[in-house]
Amino acid sequence: MTSQNEQEANVGVVGLAAMGASLARNLAHHGNRVAVYNRTYKRTEAFMQEYGSEGVFIPSQTVKEFVESLSVPRTAIIMVKAGEPTDQVIKELAEYMEQGDIIVDGGNAYFEDTIRREKEMAKLGIHFVGMGVSGGEEGALNGPSMMPGGSDWSWNTLKPILESIAAKAPDGEPCVAHIGPNGAGHFVKMVHNGIEYADMQLIAESYDLMRRGLGMAPEQIGDVFAQWNETELDSYLVEITAEVLRKRDEKTGKPLVDVIVDHAGMKGTGTWTVQTALSLGVPVTGIAEAVFARGLSDQTQLREQAQKDPFNGPDASLALDDEAKQAFIELIRQALYASKIVAYAQGFNEIAEAGKVYGWDIDMAQLARIWRAGCIIRAKFLNRISDAFESGAADVSLLFAPYFKQALENCEAAWRKVIATAVEHGIPTPVFSSSLAYFDGLRAKRLPAALIQGQRDLFGAHTYQRVDEPGAFHTLWAEPGQKEIQVSH
Amino acid sequence: MTSQNEQEANVGVVGLAAMGASLARNLAHHGNRVAVYNRTYKRTEAFMQEYGSEGVFIPSQTVKEFVESLSVPRTAIIMVKAGEPTDQVIKELAEYMEQGDIIVDGGNAYFEDTIRREKEMAKLGIHFVGMGVSGGEEGALNGPSMMPGGSDWSWNTLKPILESIAAKAPDGEPCVAHIGPNGAGHFVKMVHNGIEYADMQLIAESYDLMRRGLGMAPEQIGDVFAQWNETELDSYLVEITAEVLRKRDEKTGKPLVDVIVDHAGMKGTGTWTVQTALSLGVPVTGIAEAVFARGLSDQTQLREQAQKDPFNGPDASLALDDEAKQAFIELIRQALYASKIVAYAQGFNEIAEAGKVYGWDIDMAQLARIWRAGCIIRAKFLNRISDAFESGAADVSLLFAPYFKQALENCEAAWRKVIATAVEHGIPTPVFSSSLAYFDGLRAKRLPAALIQGQRDLFGAHTYQRVDEPGAFHTLWAEPGQKEIQVSH
Repeated sequence: MTSQNEQEANVGVVGLAAMGASLARNLAHHGNRVAVYNRTYKRTEAFMQEYGSEGVFIPSQTVKEFVESLSVPRTAIIMVKAGEPTDQVIKELAEYMEQGDIIVDGGNAYFEDTIRREKEMAKLGIHFVGMGVSGGEEGALNGPSMMPGGSDWSWNTLKPILESIAAKAPDGEPCVAHIGPNGAGHFVKMVHNGIEYADMQLIAESYDLMRRGLGMAPEQIGDVFAQWNETELDSYLVEITAEVLRKRDEKTGKPLVDVIVDHAGMKGTGTWTVQTALSLGVPVTGIAEAVFARGLSDQTQLREQAQKDPFNGPDASLALDDEAKQAFIELIRQALYASKIVAYAQGFNEIAEAGKVYGWDIDMAQLARIWRAGCIIRAKFLNRISDAFESGAADVSLLFAPYFKQALENCEAAWRKVIATAVEHGIPTPVFSSSLAYFDGLRAKRLPAALIQGQRDLFGAHTYQRVDEPGAFHTLWAEPGQKEIQVSH
Repeated sequence: MTSQNEQEANVGVVGLAAMGASLARNLAHHGNRVAVYNRTYKRTEAFMQEYGSEGVFIPSQTVKEFVESLSVPRTAIIMVKAGEPTDQVIKELAEYMEQGDIIVDGGNAYFEDTIRREKEMAKLGIHFVGMGVSGGEEGALNGPSMMPGGSDWSWNTLKPILESIAAKAPDGEPCVAHIGPNGAGHFVKMVHNGIEYADMQLIAESYDLMRRGLGMAPEQIGDVFAQWNETELDSYLVEITAEVLRKRDEKTGKPLVDVIVDHAGMKGTGTWTVQTALSLGVPVTGIAEAVFARGLSDQTQLREQAQKDPFNGPDASLALDDEAKQAFIELIRQALYASKIVAYAQGFNEIAEAGKVYGWDIDMAQLARIWRAGCIIRAKFLNRISDAFESGAADVSLLFAPYFKQALENCEAAWRKVIATAVEHGIPTPVFSSSLAYFDGLRAKRLPAALIQGQRDLFGAHTYQRVDEPGAFHTLWAEPGQKEIQVSH
């Protein structure tokens, strides 16, 4: 606790919507004295009325009052909408704050905005921290996973406060760590969400295979996911999948999943993950296909037309007997696990590349550890991922760490079988397929990219490299005598 | 010809590097009086020395002189590097130009930069035209496909000039058309390049299947592509693929493709196409996988590690006898054609969506027509695409136009067989696979996106819609009594 005055708060929260209110309560539950402020005071009053007795809250009606209610160095956590509203609050806080004060943005800001804001605040001597917060409303209240990026100095102040409210991993370690400077925290949170998209789509593809391919009822499939949650797949998303699939709709008595419109929504972090990976030149095929799969599900006009004027195609049913069905379910589980490993490896590669480009020194092992609890992608196998990075075996890619290499090799035959079957039966498995294509691309000694370079040299004189000597070469394609010229070394 | 003074030029070109020089020569060959200017005068002198006798060129040493050498309304085509250099030239030209003059940017600008520049120039009364130019150096010289976006007024002046130098389709129609206002021209050129990426990767996947799967030599595969060029696949890219594969390296006597380093380069337009599609929410899975495939080919460290410590996997060889080989080649051809149709459909959907968002009224049939010659993706089947849009049958997607729907249905069994075989033999076919997954996603009456919506509601209270009544619903997952609440209509 850094509070020096019993009248003052040691931390403040700006924005008392669902996430902000939960985080403020979590802070108070852990002995922090929490200043609270909301743009409309009515919400602050409602908050105080409902939760005021849960701990020490110091409400303010104005930003000035709010800042004055904080002990020095002042620490304000912003939980407002990303974009313009965030900039507005930062501007208002900065007006009353002093050198050495700390502003934490706990929203889902795009990391380049965070880099810009950090620079602007640094000019005023204010420490700006972009912090990824995962775990939704429930996590914010009972223990989120937090990924702050900012100065070392700010981390010293924030550490005890954030550790008090963070989720705790099974070994008791709090799920918060200083990720790196400026945009590093928001960057890794963005990729966390991208991985979440891939993971959810993989689960959805597995479900679709069991539903349409094996003709199973949602509740039966829920039971399968519950069983899978006892295996290497042990994770929050697999656990809640069982819960969703076992849920019955009160109104109709049908499985709830059958009553839900099959158009998936999204809020932007998945899209950013892919757009950023494209800028960095890192293939994140699993995340991209997952984002596009949500996009396709929401293309109403296209999907309606495809039902009005249907394409011929194979029957989705595999028509298997019970024993064969059970065997195929195990194949799906292995395909899911292998694809999931690839999606995580791609996400971690994106973080590694960004670390190089933006000058962040991100501790991947630690990052994997703070994702073990509190966040949506929490999973038992993050222990393995952490170990892999710790040992240096995952430096180039998670896929080369012996544990995961072995896992991929164990699952490989099943992975291929499941995809081939899905393809033959017309059940789309875009993330299964793209993950395997990435794996097979890596396996290839020679890729047909050499042909692409030849084409590019022919139509655009883009030149190519030779396998047997250095330099850039251009073939004079149209001129029969002179075959090749060396353009540069 | 709008020139009113025999001493003046009716059009000018700024930037005499490969593309600019070729375009200037093309203009002169067609009776235009061409002002030329380059930042370093030395290049202008070299240009005049080499090509000065090919037509009427009016060289200038300064921008002022260059502008003064143009007849009113002055028309200057900029062929310089995208980004900062383009902005610099625009600024210099605008200094001396007057209301009603026209600046054409013929580089590969990002369309949002073009929108910004058009706005800035419009304030000065100058017409800014962002023009996509496809066909490389050879096209610029002998007839490119051109996609100008700008005011109707500017098009009146540009039309005769551009039609004189454009490629001509087999029916004689010049491959240039007014695409729409501001960024429309650069937008469609960007997507053109994205489709080009997908097309090239599909050809590369087909090649890889024949090379590693069927054990064929590059020249034999070149012969196959030459044969394919007599079918529906008739296109520039298939034609040059035959040429590349038949080429022998002078130095080693080996097939050239085997001497080329298998790392594919790229220059940004493919990446932009995918990033923009993500912002627009349009799935362009084929283009995305093609961009990522180039990215993966260039991940040296990753690929080297995968060779040092190889993954177990199946044998790429299909071990087929000659008859079976011939049959499989035909299956590959059909898979390529089907995947290609999907890639084009996705690209056209991106253009249609951008048209809505940016307020462009793009004539898709006309666009397909001006891609029939001069540009890299020129192909016979663009006639069919043009017809499909003309008839209104492709309004929702090219895939629903009877000709293409039939083609997909004809190829479908082959498409599935090829992908399943590639998956089993460990040959990566990311664009084949993602295109089929998109097709199967469209075919599905229900997608597993409903499960994703259930998950999102459970962990993030994101709500879902019901199939049986309007509104947004949230299930109170953790609370056993109260099952569902309606959040809003």
